[in-house]
Amino acid sequence: MGGSSEENKKKNVNGSGAGETMRAAPRVPVPEARPFLDTFRANLKETFFPDDPFRSVVRERGFGRRAMAALRYFFPFLEWIPSYRLGAFKSDLISGITIASLAIPQGISYAKLANLPPILGLYSSFVPPLVYAMMGSSRDLAVGTVAVASLLIGSMLGAEVSPTENPALYLHLAFTATFFAGVFQASLGILRLGFIVDFLSHAAIVGFMAGAATVVCLQQLKGMLGLEHFTTSTDLVSVMRSVFSQTHQWRWESVVLGSGFLFFLLLTRFFSKRRPKLFWISAAAPLTSVILGSVLVYLTHAENHGIQIIGYLKKGLNPLSVTSLNFTPPYMMLAVKTGIITGVIALAEGIAVGRSFAMFKNYHIDGNKEMIAIGTMNVLGSFTSCYLTTGPFSRSAVNYNAGCKTAMSNVVMSAAVMVTLLFLTPLFHYTPLVVLSAIIMSAMLGLIDFPAAAHLWRVDKVDFCVCAGAYLGVVFGSVELGLVVAVAISVLRVLLFVARPRTTVLGNVPDTAMYRRMDQYATARAVPGVLVLRVDSPIYFANASYLRERISRWIDDDQERTAAKAEMSAQYVVLDMGAVGSIDTSGTSMLDELKKTLDRRGIQIVLANPGSEVMKKLDSSKVLELIGHEWIFPTVAEAVAECGFVLHSHKPGMAMGSAPSGHENIV
Amino acid sequence: MGGSSEENKKKNVNGSGAGETMRAAPRVPVPEARPFLDTFRANLKETFFPDDPFRSVVRERGFGRRAMAALRYFFPFLEWIPSYRLGAFKSDLISGITIASLAIPQGISYAKLANLPPILGLYSSFVPPLVYAMMGSSRDLAVGTVAVASLLIGSMLGAEVSPTENPALYLHLAFTATFFAGVFQASLGILRLGFIVDFLSHAAIVGFMAGAATVVCLQQLKGMLGLEHFTTSTDLVSVMRSVFSQTHQWRWESVVLGSGFLFFLLLTRFFSKRRPKLFWISAAAPLTSVILGSVLVYLTHAENHGIQIIGYLKKGLNPLSVTSLNFTPPYMMLAVKTGIITGVIALAEGIAVGRSFAMFKNYHIDGNKEMIAIGTMNVLGSFTSCYLTTGPFSRSAVNYNAGCKTAMSNVVMSAAVMVTLLFLTPLFHYTPLVVLSAIIMSAMLGLIDFPAAAHLWRVDKVDFCVCAGAYLGVVFGSVELGLVVAVAISVLRVLLFVARPRTTVLGNVPDTAMYRRMDQYATARAVPGVLVLRVDSPIYFANASYLRERISRWIDDDQERTAAKAEMSAQYVVLDMGAVGSIDTSGTSMLDELKKTLDRRGIQIVLANPGSEVMKKLDSSKVLELIGHEWIFPTVAEAVAECGFVLHSHKPGMAMGSAPSGHENIV
Repeated sequence: MGGSSEENKKKNVNGSGAGETMRAAPRVPVPEARPFLDTFRANLKETFFPDDPFRSVVRERGFGRRAMAALRYFFPFLEWIPSYRLGAFKSDLISGITIASLAIPQGISYAKLANLPPILGLYSSFVPPLVYAMMGSSRDLAVGTVAVASLLIGSMLGAEVSPTENPALYLHLAFTATFFAGVFQASLGILRLGFIVDFLSHAAIVGFMAGAATVVCLQQLKGMLGLEHFTTSTDLVSVMRSVFSQTHQWRWESVVLGSGFLFFLLLTRFFSKRRPKLFWISAAAPLTSVILGSVLVYLTHAENHGIQIIGYLKKGLNPLSVTSLNFTPPYMMLAVKTGIITGVIALAEGIAVGRSFAMFKNYHIDGNKEMIAIGTMNVLGSFTSCYLTTGPFSRSAVNYNAGCKTAMSNVVMSAAVMVTLLFLTPLFHYTPLVVLSAIIMSAMLGLIDFPAAAHLWRVDKVDFCVCAGAYLGVVFGSVELGLVVAVAISVLRVLLFVARPRTTVLGNVPDTAMYRRMDQYATARAVPGVLVLRVDSPIYFANASYLRERISRWIDDDQERTAAKAEMSAQYVVLDMGAVGSIDTSGTSMLDELKKTLDRRGIQIVLANPGSEVMKKLDSSKVLELIGHEWIFPTVAEAVAECGFVLHSHKPGMAMGSAPSGHENIV
Repeated sequence: MGGSSEENKKKNVNGSGAGETMRAAPRVPVPEARPFLDTFRANLKETFFPDDPFRSVVRERGFGRRAMAALRYFFPFLEWIPSYRLGAFKSDLISGITIASLAIPQGISYAKLANLPPILGLYSSFVPPLVYAMMGSSRDLAVGTVAVASLLIGSMLGAEVSPTENPALYLHLAFTATFFAGVFQASLGILRLGFIVDFLSHAAIVGFMAGAATVVCLQQLKGMLGLEHFTTSTDLVSVMRSVFSQTHQWRWESVVLGSGFLFFLLLTRFFSKRRPKLFWISAAAPLTSVILGSVLVYLTHAENHGIQIIGYLKKGLNPLSVTSLNFTPPYMMLAVKTGIITGVIALAEGIAVGRSFAMFKNYHIDGNKEMIAIGTMNVLGSFTSCYLTTGPFSRSAVNYNAGCKTAMSNVVMSAAVMVTLLFLTPLFHYTPLVVLSAIIMSAMLGLIDFPAAAHLWRVDKVDFCVCAGAYLGVVFGSVELGLVVAVAISVLRVLLFVARPRTTVLGNVPDTAMYRRMDQYATARAVPGVLVLRVDSPIYFANASYLRERISRWIDDDQERTAAKAEMSAQYVVLDMGAVGSIDTSGTSMLDELKKTLDRRGIQIVLANPGSEVMKKLDSSKVLELIGHEWIFPTVAEAVAECGFVLHSHKPGMAMGSAPSGHENIV
């Protein structure tokens, strides 16, 4: 059976071979029990503070130093500001101005997407970046509004309050939703529940983002075609019907101008992608388009020929909006719902972006602290006429490519936006809306990640289905439906992962002590009279009864198969527990019941390779006693060798189905 | 390092030792790819049809035989009825009459608990058992109403419709809720989503049931003390306030009678528990109490002295109630909500009971088919004036102890109840309510499972907290709150299980090739320059980013520790993938990123013992290429031996922190 090298090992451990002594010492020891409070504290820490966030605080001695360390923890800028030098500032200045030139046109565009006054896009690029610069720990995140969350705010609030008929209420609800989004985000961080964001799987996000981008592009057809009336639905069918039912309303001026700018923007992006050093071309393109478009309209008076323009923008900094927050019943729930949903979406993007760039530059991001920073920035934003902001991927990438060194680039962007608000807003009077549509479309096309979808298809078909489901849900249903589909599929997958762990039959690879999956390794051979099963997951309440039934069925299958071939059916079932990381009381009960059931069928259960955690639980639940410590082995090979020894010493009289009663005679 | 036996094994596999050849063949092969549709079909089957329910149908040849097999599948009584003999019927007759004697008083009592007319308890023991006898696959389940679901129906419906002011609407809503409960139960079975019931963990159920039993007992104080007014809340504080605020209303007649019967019932239970053969004593006790109580009241005219009685019960079988079902908007949602919640509770109990007894007698129960049976029985019940039924534990245990052989005992019970309905209902006219209270209390006290709670405390403290949380939620909040707490804690536990897998540092057990957890095995020693980490769960989207950060922190910790002791810090990180059952695209991306991060820190990543599934995913995602197939080993010992070889051949010049650049020189 090839177990000789394993036998040697066992001798090393216990000083005795199998079957040589009358009662061998336990081969797998039960680890010593630790006090409950110790393990409880350790578990609590591992669960909620796995990153040990306060280690820098605890390390300090004395109250003053600890307070300073805590302050540094919550306001990371205190850490880098003392050593901040002119060289770094030069880099931050360049990148800050670059992202400001992107932030201004994008801000105006996305505010339109949320059916909010365009000026809100500028306000939202002024206060939140300042807050983030103080509290955020990412050096590369560029703060701003995002298209998908803007669209969601527009569609969720717009479903109950019309932005055209009741603009004041709509605006106040947008602030209130932002407030609740911020509170929710910060609470997740404070309660250290940041892991909830991880339950939006990567595949679901790829599909959802691509779907949302498609939907946003479709919405831009209104601006591109110069239509005045448009469907309020976002699904492909409604939009197409709306577009093609009014072909006579299409304005060729709008179409020409829009296509021209879109082509220009895509071209610059193409160049920048080919040569990353030319990133500034695509970064400056939106502002260039806005300037070009405005000048063109101003010179040709195209606003009188069917080209819609932004119009009057108020000069001045953000007005306070604390008193506008709406906490009265009928609408508050709408704001809470919108806030939580858009807040999660925004958070997922912000955290993912922060993490990716931290990985590139090899520094550490504390997810929960980031949530507190993003949440605070939105709460303060909602007090100062800003709507939902996060760290958009495109802008952060530009920031990174422009060579930003610290969060100071956000401060520079904020200052540039301030100057714009104070002095330059009249310049946007003649900016044609169609240019904004082109800017949004070109940004959105970048969010559709074909290579990622192809990768999913190649590596994991189920992940691809999740991705496609989310995409189709958004495009043919609505953004909310797509989100629900994405979350539902993700959670269902987790539950299925958990509830349906894989069990496999292992076979011996001839001339070795290795046991491998029979369905995957053609050379693996079943051992006569012994069924080796491997459980690939922790055993606990969510899968215990499934596992019990599945193991029974493996045994039934084995008996059917061996009966058909007139071979010896399994007298021993060896469970390879190598992949069973932990077990709870339902799991130990399951083993207890399994042992009793198999006893009635005359089959001996043998455990191989259980971890120390599992051994402890088996011991305290008395299942260890029930199974018998002598039936637990450190490896499958040793377990099988022992079973083989017992079987052979009774061979060949002991036929199928009879109990392995020989056991008592030997140990 | 003691890896010699492992070295031998590797020689056996590859025919070459480590480092002997210039470029060793891959030590861990990638299994051959299988067609997508094959694996997809296999996965689908494993997930939704793990028990292969239709194997008996598919095995038959010809349409007629297959149809018969399918019919036998859905109506299991067709399987045993042809071979049903008089001997079995005798056993079923005895057990059927025994459970009927229990069902009649319990049915009346529980209907009172749900604020429904007592006669409904008898109706509900007539039709549903007949349906179950045809469709159910358990031989031991005794069908009937249960206390907890009755209480829940009472409190959920009672919160919106008063059973005293609007009894007709209340009654119709109870039927409607039963209808939806049945539809929901059957749908779960048909959609093969039965695994959802498994997410109510055993610990949560123990706590919830004990809490519900406590609450039901508290409610009985009304009957026991003979109070006319009582709080509608179920929590401990309200009930106690209600009881002690009207001490002057307590009726001593009621208290004496109730305590006497409760004592009698508990005494008989005690006897039956001591001697299982005397099960019939406790089984017959409730009916005896009812008869004794009725006779007593009849003779003493105690109904005129403050003893409340059942009063008039209509003679005759179940009237049809199809037309009473209420599908109009305001109340339908209430019925749907009540139906789904009570349906799940009832289902969980029914399935658990069926499974336990099937295990005792060593036959198989198909969970999904059981759900269809229980669901159908409730749908048909709702058409015939029955309310929610399932397989209560206490009654099924009596059935089992009485020696039932098949579901025929349910038919016998049904017949006995029919006779009662047709001829005997007037006999219950004088039955005092206080006896019913005593019957309920004695049944409920049996549901509080102290040994189970003690077992939880001993084996798993977290499970105990779940149990205690559910209990306290029910007792101090409400039954619904307790249920929400139980489900929320259970789901949060699953999510935490999934999101926070354990990673541990392994050390070498001296003089062996074994690697064990350093925190558990005092003898395990760290290998200088090599950090061995074990991941105890599948790697996928829900835990990938956590794992990346946790692994980074292990490395940071290692560097801090070694820097403090001036030892060599880890140049190699060996990930023991033995417990990683599967990996998805987020998982492979995580490894990809980890590899790149560690490269930047000058650390080589090495994988040990990956399963074939994992190898396939690593290969198709190109992560295998990135890490290098030569850095993947079948065991930790081999991986460490290889790292040690590289380290030693450069020893001792290569200091801390520098890249293990020696790698290229060797392979």
